Amino acid sequence: MKFQAEINVMPKKEILDPQGKAVSSSMKNLGLTTIQNVRIGKHISLEITADSEAQAKELVDQACKNLLANLIMESYEFTIVAC
Amino acid sequence: MKFQAEINVMPKKEILDPQGKAVSSSMKNLGLTTIQNVRIGKHISLEITADSEAQAKELVDQACKNLLANLIMESYEFTIVAC
Repeated sequence: MKFQAEINVMPKKEILDPQGKAVSSSMKNLGLTTIQNVRIGKHISLEITADSEAQAKELVDQACKNLLANLIMESYEFTIVAC
Repeated sequence: MKFQAEINVMPKKEILDPQGKAVSSSMKNLGLTTIQNVRIGKHISLEITADSEAQAKELVDQACKNLLANLIMESYEFTIVAC
């Protein structure tokens, strides 16, 4: 079975996000003064072939831990749908 | 009212995504051979103050068009929830 995974990798809350801070101030310069607390991370979409949703989850989790996220500074979450 | 917006900015389908291709091959080297079609974009979360959900949507749309996404190469989608 084929699954589509959508993964978000975000900098942890305790960690300063300089890219987000820069975008926050740019928003103000653009006149969008009501936007704040911008945080920027990665969004990864991938296709995975697995026997079951549980197996797909396990594989995506492994991919996040070993390659996609730096667990010291980032946290991740993902959703999986059959396709 | 305060809203939380979650935005995904992804490279368009027709456009080559070299970062995704690199991650695809790394997956194979890690033994995750069933993962393919990796595409990598940005995930942005932000807080916005607006009178209504419609106004918040309008402002986030403006932010995406003017700053967050390069519409020539990228497409965006977002969800808004009151918080």
